[in-house]
Amino acid sequence: MTFDNRTDVTTPPYEYEKDPHAIEVESFRQIRALCNLEGLTEEEAQVAMRLVHTCGDPSIMDDIFLSKKAVQSGIQAAANDATLLCDVEMVKHGLTRRFQNSEALCFLNHPEVPELAKQRGETRSMAALEMWKPQLKDSVVLIGNAPTALFRLLEMINQGGEKPALIIGIPVGFVGAAESKEALIEAAEAHDLNAISVRGRRGGSALTASAWNACLRLSRGIRF
Amino acid sequence: MTFDNRTDVTTPPYEYEKDPHAIEVESFRQIRALCNLEGLTEEEAQVAMRLVHTCGDPSIMDDIFLSKKAVQSGIQAAANDATLLCDVEMVKHGLTRRFQNSEALCFLNHPEVPELAKQRGETRSMAALEMWKPQLKDSVVLIGNAPTALFRLLEMINQGGEKPALIIGIPVGFVGAAESKEALIEAAEAHDLNAISVRGRRGGSALTASAWNACLRLSRGIRF
Repeated sequence: MTFDNRTDVTTPPYEYEKDPHAIEVESFRQIRALCNLEGLTEEEAQVAMRLVHTCGDPSIMDDIFLSKKAVQSGIQAAANDATLLCDVEMVKHGLTRRFQNSEALCFLNHPEVPELAKQRGETRSMAALEMWKPQLKDSVVLIGNAPTALFRLLEMINQGGEKPALIIGIPVGFVGAAESKEALIEAAEAHDLNAISVRGRRGGSALTASAWNACLRLSRGIRF
Repeated sequence: MTFDNRTDVTTPPYEYEKDPHAIEVESFRQIRALCNLEGLTEEEAQVAMRLVHTCGDPSIMDDIFLSKKAVQSGIQAAANDATLLCDVEMVKHGLTRRFQNSEALCFLNHPEVPELAKQRGETRSMAALEMWKPQLKDSVVLIGNAPTALFRLLEMINQGGEKPALIIGIPVGFVGAAESKEALIEAAEAHDLNAISVRGRRGGSALTASAWNACLRLSRGIRF
């Protein structure tokens, strides 16, 4: 691989790496060089590096939250083929299909959800969690878009609802996102929940999916 | 709406905005206050603000590239219900469904693509562009993941291929992403292409989809 001493890759004929495995290996080599992984286990470092890989921004490292047993629980849940509950379709479509035995679930477009949301005067993302209740125990929850969904999940758990095996809660945005993630981090402590998050406004479906993709890879012995 | 004078929103009972319209309006109010939109038309500002909204990071403003007629072409293409060509499924699933008349296309999982990629020793994302050729004229291209797909697209155009109405090229990552986007920006100048991008490593499916979502909204007269 030659990534240096190019003349000008931005004018044709372009010179660029075309081998997908080489691209992934070189990406992680660069990420490892750019990021401070001190204090993380090797498994945790794999998750953190995949988050950096997904957003292209090493500064996200500073905001990553991993509860003590989160990554180990994730690897175990991946090995158990746990039920996956997603807040939006985009998270579902960000999961690495070849490592995934069963289809992830998302109820946002379920026919009953819009009416329920309207009745209650709340977001569809919140209303969709009604459908999660029977599935919650030992599931993996993936919330990448809606702070309201994360708040509702925590309300359900606070009221004695079942606990997921792992909550990956990385909603994005300006209204409620940072607060919902701080609430997750506090609840993880209070209720001994396994949680992965990114503090602050940054987040999204891709980051959320990628944290789970890292667990999937680790459960299959794949490391970078 | 009260977003200030809360006591502590991170411990239950949580206090948070549940109305989806109020959330969106307040988000854009905050983004407008945080970002310098000088030099942008009001339509361009809508696109830039939606990119910020999607990643939760106002610092992305500095890296946004909009060619001169990009946003106007996007609004026109949205009104024309242009064919949408996506590099990955995740981009497709990030599009605002209710504003979209026809299904976007993605050929990454087309049965012929893996074999073609293997034969040529290139990524599946690149090989999938073979299927784009007959659709390229007046299409809107959405590349949110693979720098190799963006390079291949530019190679096709350099070799006299048809021009899309708009290229939204915002791949993410450490190997080739920044270079592919600089190549897009140079090609936009050289071939009078309409292009939207984000310089540097940052990018992704969500940002790519959201730039198009902004054009969709503008074509329907929706502004924040």
